[in-house]
Amino acid sequence: MTTEPKWHYENFEPTGSSIGYRITRKLDEVQSPFQKIEIFETTDWGNLMLIDGAVMLTTRDNFLYHEMMSHPALFTHAAPKNVVIIGGGDCGTLREVLKHEGVVEAVQCDIDEQVTRMAEKWFPELCDHNGDARAQLLFDDGIAYMANRPAGSVDIIIVDSTDPVGPAEGLFNKAFYESCFRALREDGILVQQSESPLMLLKLIQEMRAEMGKAGFQSFKTLPFPQPCYPTGWWSCTLARKSAGGFEFREADAKAKTFDSKYYNAGIHHGALSTPAFVAQALGE
Amino acid sequence: MTTEPKWHYENFEPTGSSIGYRITRKLDEVQSPFQKIEIFETTDWGNLMLIDGAVMLTTRDNFLYHEMMSHPALFTHAAPKNVVIIGGGDCGTLREVLKHEGVVEAVQCDIDEQVTRMAEKWFPELCDHNGDARAQLLFDDGIAYMANRPAGSVDIIIVDSTDPVGPAEGLFNKAFYESCFRALREDGILVQQSESPLMLLKLIQEMRAEMGKAGFQSFKTLPFPQPCYPTGWWSCTLARKSAGGFEFREADAKAKTFDSKYYNAGIHHGALSTPAFVAQALGE
Repeated sequence: MTTEPKWHYENFEPTGSSIGYRITRKLDEVQSPFQKIEIFETTDWGNLMLIDGAVMLTTRDNFLYHEMMSHPALFTHAAPKNVVIIGGGDCGTLREVLKHEGVVEAVQCDIDEQVTRMAEKWFPELCDHNGDARAQLLFDDGIAYMANRPAGSVDIIIVDSTDPVGPAEGLFNKAFYESCFRALREDGILVQQSESPLMLLKLIQEMRAEMGKAGFQSFKTLPFPQPCYPTGWWSCTLARKSAGGFEFREADAKAKTFDSKYYNAGIHHGALSTPAFVAQALGE
Repeated sequence: MTTEPKWHYENFEPTGSSIGYRITRKLDEVQSPFQKIEIFETTDWGNLMLIDGAVMLTTRDNFLYHEMMSHPALFTHAAPKNVVIIGGGDCGTLREVLKHEGVVEAVQCDIDEQVTRMAEKWFPELCDHNGDARAQLLFDDGIAYMANRPAGSVDIIIVDSTDPVGPAEGLFNKAFYESCFRALREDGILVQQSESPLMLLKLIQEMRAEMGKAGFQSFKTLPFPQPCYPTGWWSCTLARKSAGGFEFREADAKAKTFDSKYYNAGIHHGALSTPAFVAQALGE
């Protein structure tokens, strides 16, 4: 039995725009204690995960997001050893972090175990490093994890969460950032997904302001293409515990021994070259 | 009288994805001898132009496309003086070209005068340089224009057309590229919009092959964000008449005296840093 493909549209109210996919069938669905997770098969984008109706990732384009959430931060830090990922239950960011041989500990703390179970089943390529001895998969509250993490024990914190509504709301405020600040070493870096640089600069401003109240000293927002998110253009924001710039280990990035599909040293350089309209909005 | 905003969706069959906008009202509509042009007012993207139902541009994000269709090519050429734009009837590319003080002639040849009339009315900010003494607006067949243009009289040709179907189909084949090759000086550069680097690499390969048959020697595809086009990620492809690389006048780009909202030297550098998956597909 075959059925006609149907179009699934997600309307983004804050941006007044919409992204849709041609869907062949629903593959799976689970209602976890936190959210509803659905998996669809598409005609051109591989599998598609929705959480509470919002597109989280597709097979086809998730590499852009996962590479840009990890490599710029890890190549900015001089020698990252201890990495914590808050959220990131699909394991794609963890996979990229583990490509850095200097990393000795990579904790992924997502509140919802079902996200990882669905990723293992429908995005197995993202989970192929979950057995790495350096990886630790926790299914727990990321806010509590950071509050309890020993002071000065982390080099990089990656906040790879859903938007600041629902379960992820507490990951965008001063209290959470204070825990991160405390847990980081002096040269530590916090990196968080920070929405669309075209349409949601107000959110980036607010995020930076909260990070600043928690003690973070300097900030840099790196834009990158991300077709499945609103406006198709996304960003991560890096925050440094100590004052300092965001020059990166360009020679190491150029000589990297692992594969990446999007990230390279030149793209990192380009992402650091803030467009004038973004710089203006962020007061840089 | 107010009406509820409605969602307008454009389904892109070749990519299996869709982009939509929240529309408040239709502002204008004209059926030209070539195509149907419609203007809508959106809640968040300013005005929106559709041609035969396909999104051409919005007030909010057109700067990305227009800057990337012009500045990389003009800063790659050592001293561009004579520039021809084929298509580009909204005048946004012309506006960017005229920002280069060394340009002495900028011809815009679009087959459809109605596109320019609608741009003057609904995107007046793109047309504010049309009175420049160096600008020449022709409403004619771009294929014929290039066939008749004197040999060796052009430094940069910018093909700023719709997709390779309908009126623009003849702008993507060997015969047209041969006219361009002949019209360019030895150090001349052809630049053409080349669709999505994520989903439409086959088209870029075919375009490069046709350009090669016409004699063009070297090629470079530069990706850039473009939220209103399929996948939100777009590209332009530069072709050189003579063998050579695509190093650009980086010092001049850094010292540019005109404003741009997206383009800067670092972003140009980043756009030249072809992602691995694109390089692989294009055999670079």
